[in-house]
Amino acid sequence: MFKAKIDVTLKKSVLDPQGQTVLQALHSLGYGTVDALRVGKHFEMTLQSEDRKRAESEIKLMCERLLVNPVIEQYTVELEELR
Amino acid sequence: MFKAKIDVTLKKSVLDPQGQTVLQALHSLGYGTVDALRVGKHFEMTLQSEDRKRAESEIKLMCERLLVNPVIEQYTVELEELR
Repeated sequence: MFKAKIDVTLKKSVLDPQGQTVLQALHSLGYGTVDALRVGKHFEMTLQSEDRKRAESEIKLMCERLLVNPVIEQYTVELEELR
Repeated sequence: MFKAKIDVTLKKSVLDPQGQTVLQALHSLGYGTVDALRVGKHFEMTLQSEDRKRAESEIKLMCERLLVNPVIEQYTVELEELR
């Protein structure tokens, strides 16, 4: 059994108006040390799979088919075995 | 200078209809091994701060004041120094 954490963010070349808005809000609250901010999606899932390779390839497919828009988004996966 | 990754998720006791919907979509695409899924927000920011303790406490304040609703959400922070 595995636990996967998937972070989906906009590619660097894609504008992120939501992130800009949050950044401005932080600045107006006085947090001037933050100089860049991007917002993305976070998925946490558990998989009933016994094999790491299989879990990894399944996650890749799920990302490509549903969770991520590969035209404008990129993603990172963190996979941890649960015992 | 630091890079922070903040993941904000709903607390376990709070229903996550968005996560349920994504889970059902994955099941209907044939990914039956996924048996739980939660959706959250992901923030990536860079901080012009030289001191790790200070960066940490600033992030905590930003989360409490703007990024996280502590009534229904919890968050994790990953802080990495950039050189």
